[in-house]
This record gives sequence, C-alpha cells and structure tokens, in this order.
Amino acid sequence: MRIVDLSVAIENRMDVYPGDSEVEIGKTSEIDTEGYTLSIMSFGSHTGTHVDLPLHCIKGGKDTASMPLDSFFGQAVMFEAHDTLKPVEISEEDIKRIKKGDIVMIYTGWGSKLGSDEYFENIHGISMELAEKLIKKGIKAIGTDMPSVDKDGEGIVHRLLLSHDIVVFECLVKLNEIGSERFEFFGLPLKIKEGDGCPVRAIAIINN
Amino acid sequence: MRIVDLSVAIENRMDVYPGDSEVEIGKTSEIDTEGYTLSIMSFGSHTGTHVDLPLHCIKGGKDTASMPLDSFFGQAVMFEAHDTLKPVEISEEDIKRIKKGDIVMIYTGWGSKLGSDEYFENIHGISMELAEKLIKKGIKAIGTDMPSVDKDGEGIVHRLLLSHDIVVFECLVKLNEIGSERFEFFGLPLKIKEGDGCPVRAIAIINN
Repeated sequence: MRIVDLSVAIENRMDVYPGDSEVEIGKTSEIDTEGYTLSIMSFGSHTGTHVDLPLHCIKGGKDTASMPLDSFFGQAVMFEAHDTLKPVEISEEDIKRIKKGDIVMIYTGWGSKLGSDEYFENIHGISMELAEKLIKKGIKAIGTDMPSVDKDGEGIVHRLLLSHDIVVFECLVKLNEIGSERFEFFGLPLKIKEGDGCPVRAIAIINN
Repeated sequence: MRIVDLSVAIENRMDVYPGDSEVEIGKTSEIDTEGYTLSIMSFGSHTGTHVDLPLHCIKGGKDTASMPLDSFFGQAVMFEAHDTLKPVEISEEDIKRIKKGDIVMIYTGWGSKLGSDEYFENIHGISMELAEKLIKKGIKAIGTDMPSVDKDGEGIVHRLLLSHDIVVFECLVKLNEIGSERFEFFGLPLKIKEGDGCPVRAIAIINN
C-alpha cells in the first residue's frame, strides 16, 4: 500500500481564492507555560484543498453534515488534460473508462502555479459538455488540481454538478505522484452544520 | 459495506472543553445576493471529535502536517469498558485481541452525557498501566468516546502515548453502532502547519 497526500498545507496568511477569508492560526496555550499546546484557527470554507457541497450553489442543498458519507471516498479514476487554455474535455473513448459511482480525478498540472499569482487567474475549469457526460455516467464526485471546475467568475459547471449531488474537490496537489489509473480516494469534510464546503485532508491509497 | 459517522457536528457555540476557544461560524456570501454560499469558521484545535498529535504535549513533537498519514486510518479493534468511575483498564485476556499496528477503540458509553455539563466533568480516562500495555503491543492510535484519555487536569497518559507517536482520538460518538469487533477506521486531520490537534470527520467502515 502506498499513500499520497493530495492536500495543500494550511498555514497563516496562505494564498486563498480572491475575496475569500484569510487564514489565521495562533497558539492559545504553550507547552512551556501550560504544559500543552492548543491552537485557534480561522479560515474560509473553501480554503486550500477543499470540497464543495451542493449548499455552495443550490438553495436548500445538502451540506457537510447531511451529505451521504460515501460521496467523499471510494474508487477513483485518473484522467490527464494538459491544455488548460480552454475548458477541459475528455474524449468519448476515455469516458468509457468511467464506472458508475466513480470519483473522477482530473490532473492538469495547474498545481505547478501554486504560490504564484497565476494560480487563481485565468482558470477555465471543465466544459459544460464534459460535466453533462459525467452526470450521465453516474459519477459521485469529481476532483482536480485546478482551483475551480468553472471559468473565472462563472458558476455554471458548479451549479450543474452540485444540483446532481456530485461533490467537487478542488486545489488537489500531487495528483502526478499517484501513478495508477485507479486508486482509492478519501477526502472527508468536517461535519460542519450548514457547511457549504470544507478544507479536507485528501489522500490517495494505491494498492497495486 | 456499512459506514458509521463517529463525529459530533460542529456548530456555533457548541460545548467545548472548559477553557478552549469558542466555535464561531458565519456566512460571508449568500446564494440570494452573490449566487453562492461561503462561510468563515473559527474553532480550537481540540473541538468536538478530534485527534491529538504529539505536538500537543511533546516539545518538537510531530504535528498534523508531519505525522505519517497511516497513523490516522486502518484496522481498528473495539473494547467496551463501562466503569468510568475509575481509569479504564483492559484485562490481560482481552489485550491479546490487539495486533501490532492496530487502532484501539474504547467504548465507555460516556457519549450519553453529550450536551450536558457532565460531559466534560469527572473524567478518569484510561490507566497508566493500560497505556503502557498498549505501547508494548505496538498500537498506532487510540480512540474513545470520552473527552480525554486522562483524568481531569492531568496529562500524564497523553504525554506517555504521544511521546510514543500514538495519536489520540477523543469525543467519538456512536461507537455502539459499529457492532463489529474489527472494522476500518478513518480520522484524518487537516494538514495544519504546526497543528497540535484538529477536529476530524471520523468514520467506521464495516465490511462484514
């Protein structure tokens, strides 16, 4: 068994999506004085590697507490799409690799921009046509190393996927280190009441 | 496959360990006005169902970002101990059920006090003798429905376990719904830099 950590580290003043809440983490107790360390942390629901829940875009949609847990883990299937100058497509031939209930993972290489201003700029996401095909295939979740499945400033792909209770993992890293077409993915959000999204510790478990 | 959610819901002003930071969650964007919902959340590192990392008690100890990921999931073995008026013990006979690398789960019934003042009072945790036996067996993690593995105000059991890189899951719920001596446990913390602990979405997966 091999494990790949697909998560960005969460730290003070890390880069966040433009307009999102800043990350602030501090100690409230120290070993030297109190004998143990405690922290307080404050961040937005879509900080770093995170999952979008239906409630993010759909009124009355499922939240982190009410979404069935099996949406957040299971068999994942990997696709590569390196042309990010336009919305990502997957060929009809490749689409056949998807099984009902799969988590579809799309590696674009976008993560190489992490830490630069370009990371959150000129995102094209995936095409509406691809989103529609994935819905027809009955996938339960999608994940990508892009910060959004939508073009900057748009939300149509989010709304389409989330209206079908397909959860969306964004800002994944190290997808290139998985090295297997199929693997187990885990990315469970905290059980936040009315949580529209949540940072996750996303991992791949490769058994072959 | 059956899944049991072992996590307390995180919500505004929920009960926390005396002296810990309050939980505050609010919306920063609403569907009606911006077209999507965003939240900001603030909480302590040991809020609700959470995991303690070595850094909680050990200077220079491993944190949520550096701890090997396989400490947070794997084969778990269940024990029941309903006498919580004294530190929990496990008999020599029962200890034999533990395999090297197991996650040891201790169900006491303490969770029935959740929501009352008694939940965080008069905790006795587990005995030092039990902690020493578990270390000898080579366990990688321990979990319990009690809010602490230590007696109120003490930290000796924490320090002993964490000094051996055994992570500690506390405030688990619904351990009684697992109904299987052995199961798969997952409770991955966020990748917080210098995180001494973190709330987790803890789940049991029962395959039989």
